Amino acid sequence: MTARPVFKPEWTDRPPPRGSFRSIFKWGAPDGFKHPNERLYALLKRELNLTDADFASKTHAGRETVTGTAAPALTPDRIAALEAIVGADNVDRDDFARVKYSTGKTSEEAMQLRRGIVRDVADLALHPRSKADIIQVVAYCHRAKIPVTVYGGGGSVTLGLASGKGGVVLVMGTHMHRHLEFNETDRTITVEPGMLGPALEDLLNRAPERLDARHAYTCGHFPQSFEYASVGGWIAALGSGQQSSYYGDAYDLVLGQEIVTPAGHLKTLVYPGTATGPKVNDILKGSEGAFGVLVAVTLKVFRYRPENRRKFAFIFPDWAAAVNASREIAQGEFGMPAMYRISDPEETAVALKLYGVEDTWIDRLIRLRGFKPGVRCLCIGHTEGERGFASNVKGCVKAICRQHGAMYITGYPVTQWEHGRFADPYMREDLNDYGITIETLETAVSWTDLQRVHRAVRTFIKDRPQTVCMTHCSHFYPQGTNLYFIFISKFDDMADFKRFHRGIIDQIVLHGGSPSHHHGVGKMIGPWMKKHLGKEQMDVLRALKTHFDPHNIMNPGGTLGLD
Amino acid sequence: MTARPVFKPEWTDRPPPRGSFRSIFKWGAPDGFKHPNERLYALLKRELNLTDADFASKTHAGRETVTGTAAPALTPDRIAALEAIVGADNVDRDDFARVKYSTGKTSEEAMQLRRGIVRDVADLALHPRSKADIIQVVAYCHRAKIPVTVYGGGGSVTLGLASGKGGVVLVMGTHMHRHLEFNETDRTITVEPGMLGPALEDLLNRAPERLDARHAYTCGHFPQSFEYASVGGWIAALGSGQQSSYYGDAYDLVLGQEIVTPAGHLKTLVYPGTATGPKVNDILKGSEGAFGVLVAVTLKVFRYRPENRRKFAFIFPDWAAAVNASREIAQGEFGMPAMYRISDPEETAVALKLYGVEDTWIDRLIRLRGFKPGVRCLCIGHTEGERGFASNVKGCVKAICRQHGAMYITGYPVTQWEHGRFADPYMREDLNDYGITIETLETAVSWTDLQRVHRAVRTFIKDRPQTVCMTHCSHFYPQGTNLYFIFISKFDDMADFKRFHRGIIDQIVLHGGSPSHHHGVGKMIGPWMKKHLGKEQMDVLRALKTHFDPHNIMNPGGTLGLD
Repeated sequence: MTARPVFKPEWTDRPPPRGSFRSIFKWGAPDGFKHPNERLYALLKRELNLTDADFASKTHAGRETVTGTAAPALTPDRIAALEAIVGADNVDRDDFARVKYSTGKTSEEAMQLRRGIVRDVADLALHPRSKADIIQVVAYCHRAKIPVTVYGGGGSVTLGLASGKGGVVLVMGTHMHRHLEFNETDRTITVEPGMLGPALEDLLNRAPERLDARHAYTCGHFPQSFEYASVGGWIAALGSGQQSSYYGDAYDLVLGQEIVTPAGHLKTLVYPGTATGPKVNDILKGSEGAFGVLVAVTLKVFRYRPENRRKFAFIFPDWAAAVNASREIAQGEFGMPAMYRISDPEETAVALKLYGVEDTWIDRLIRLRGFKPGVRCLCIGHTEGERGFASNVKGCVKAICRQHGAMYITGYPVTQWEHGRFADPYMREDLNDYGITIETLETAVSWTDLQRVHRAVRTFIKDRPQTVCMTHCSHFYPQGTNLYFIFISKFDDMADFKRFHRGIIDQIVLHGGSPSHHHGVGKMIGPWMKKHLGKEQMDVLRALKTHFDPHNIMNPGGTLGLD
Repeated sequence: MTARPVFKPEWTDRPPPRGSFRSIFKWGAPDGFKHPNERLYALLKRELNLTDADFASKTHAGRETVTGTAAPALTPDRIAALEAIVGADNVDRDDFARVKYSTGKTSEEAMQLRRGIVRDVADLALHPRSKADIIQVVAYCHRAKIPVTVYGGGGSVTLGLASGKGGVVLVMGTHMHRHLEFNETDRTITVEPGMLGPALEDLLNRAPERLDARHAYTCGHFPQSFEYASVGGWIAALGSGQQSSYYGDAYDLVLGQEIVTPAGHLKTLVYPGTATGPKVNDILKGSEGAFGVLVAVTLKVFRYRPENRRKFAFIFPDWAAAVNASREIAQGEFGMPAMYRISDPEETAVALKLYGVEDTWIDRLIRLRGFKPGVRCLCIGHTEGERGFASNVKGCVKAICRQHGAMYITGYPVTQWEHGRFADPYMREDLNDYGITIETLETAVSWTDLQRVHRAVRTFIKDRPQTVCMTHCSHFYPQGTNLYFIFISKFDDMADFKRFHRGIIDQIVLHGGSPSHHHGVGKMIGPWMKKHLGKEQMDVLRALKTHFDPHNIMNPGGTLGLD
């Protein structure tokens, strides 16, 4: 008997053509790919009610060259004036640059570009060389009332980069990615905001050779978009890294900022703690380019001691047990694991496939011990910090998990997770190529509200037929956590997707979740801001906006719901 | 041979007369006293070049009944309108109340009151019963342009309560000291801001009986003024408790606030972490009554487990060793001790007397081991948190201190410190009674700047003949610490004191220290704010001020340097 050849979709393995739409919406490195494995492919077909035939040919691959932008609204004399500031070499006016630097990584932007639809693009992309350039550009645009947006790493998933009103976009990564100062005594580093995560981390990991330091350091901030996320973006949109439970969110990591605004240029002072009134450094955090342009950021750094890392993974009998144990851990006052996450039953099923646990001896033991598929929940994590601290944290975590009926399943799934930690989003294009959309939404919740929000949002998502809904919690605090929803479904058209997606935000806000824990607001969440924060708090943000940017040139068009 | 009777000053042991000036400026409980012990008295005489004769009679004891306020500027119809809001029983217009509720705890306020000088007092003291009262009062005062200040515990040491422009003062402690909500699941408590520290701590320590909780809790915030400090004051002036290195500063502890401002009434949302733009909760922190009146505060709470506390004390060979070891501890990433402090050589000499170490076996051992008086430095501390965490922290601290040449001297000095932790300021009146002034100033410094600021400020203080200058660091961060200066000297008159005191602030700011780490700004530090923060940052604070309080009625007259 001859085995029938197993069908495997032709996942794309070629970098997108230069200058193509695909080269803009593709996640991460042009030559970076990660394809769904066999088990995941089987699960998708089952859950989405698809067959191999649905994966026979790709649609809307977006391999065409970018065209179709409207003529720039900027007059030639203005373009000339801006060229005179940054130098003609540092001005892009071609379709590709205008689209690229006005586009983030939302599914809807990808859907548009796959269809060759171009909208909300800047007139010009400028590549400022220095703070001095930016001071001049902002002053000129303020006088001439030209909108200014800022492009860091391009990873916004909230339409943060859409240039609804045209104008210029400042591309920070071209020149403004230098490190400015390293202070080992104070454990701080100051860099330009266009520096990407890996460059910063490499600088710190190799501090003894590169910075003449006594020790090696880490920045402690590893968002999933780490490889293409800029330091400026981390703080502008209030990101959280995968190890935030120990290192803190971007909000906690930023000690000082230098910002150029239409109202002037300011540099906050770096003190470990002060009682000199409201902290301007904190007031700037999360302003998403609506107040001004960051030109320098001072960050905390931490000792780099991967040898102290202690990994662990558990299987819980159910979601309630996983949540309760996690709350006890977050409130245990023994310090926190650096990375820590729990997956709900539906995500657990996928994760066991993704992390290669399925059909291993671990998997067999899990079944043997009676942890039921569809009910059981996966927990993975690792500790960091000083050696005694890191092992005490792991010991306390183990004790608490066991009290809640969990089985320890070694650190193996964590090692697997580490391999894929930045690569999983690469699978997005593979699914999109066959008309399947995978998208994420996240919210901050108190422990009290967690289960209610989880149930409500899951119910909404699962009410759509043939839709996968996976949820995890991945950033922990004594007072609560985040809920991170991932849905996968086929959508007939963009309007269908958008209706569904916005419906999820409605559910989150309706049931008391914050509309964002770490993705930011951008122009996507903007419309919910007033309902969420209330008029009085919006008025405070608007007062700041009016102060910094009286002509509303900084990232206008809905950012933070301000206009 | 008969021993000559040892002279002992007649330290005051009677509560001040009711209604007297002394009852206003006296620290803490009316019947609370702590007198300098024999050794400290001897040291003072030696250092200040005094004899027993200088302690023969008291001057300016301030036992007279308060009189001398100017006629209220408020017209009878306005007084009647305010009475109609809060009820006539809740309005004080007598001299005593007007002075009491416009006075904090600076030396200069005490000097004035000792001399019967009355200035900068409110016209009326109101005791609001509820948020509803405050909403009406603020709206009325906004319309009528009547200044409003807020009196919490009365412990301001920055002229925060001086009513330079008259108007009304809201006394929060009379009615608005209730607890509003306790959420054990989320580890939060919401209280009215007039609640004092001990009431909050008692509620939490006895949570199983008083709040029907599963565990006992602590607020983790213990400023030296704890016994008479209000929750509202902690956050309005950005205080730090003696255990802040572990629990965090007030800034870190406050999760949500409800505030009534002339621009409206708002309640911030409580989330463990969010990415929904600049955080209004943080923007309000440190606003010192210049934006509005706090009516509710939501705080983190922590498990109360004093049984896990591990005490330690060390003697370091010198100040450099103490500082370097402390930096290593603060950057060790094993968690922090809750209380931790190091004293410079001059403070060490006093502390060994104050904590009763002098002439004990510990003292003899210290001498035997060659730690030189005038050079050696004391370090005391204790850990908190989960048991394994607390003992690992102590173990790490011990290892680091020993590497820096320190000798472990048991936890005895910590126990002594605990006994006096809130009582030491009671000695102030004893010294003041004999014309000796003791005052403190503090600053936040990076590790890089610490020694420079310490040297510069010490040099300035010691340049004054017969002046004691003691310094310690008592709040630690990976990036730096605070420097806390205590000086003791005789001053000929108030102007002489003020010149000297302001000269110290000049030195702090000139050498790069923050003008306050945890005392706040008030009207005292206000004049340095522009030089310190710069025009651009002051403009941000002013934009917020203008938004919340367009008629400048909220704590006007120099608060935060805003007017």
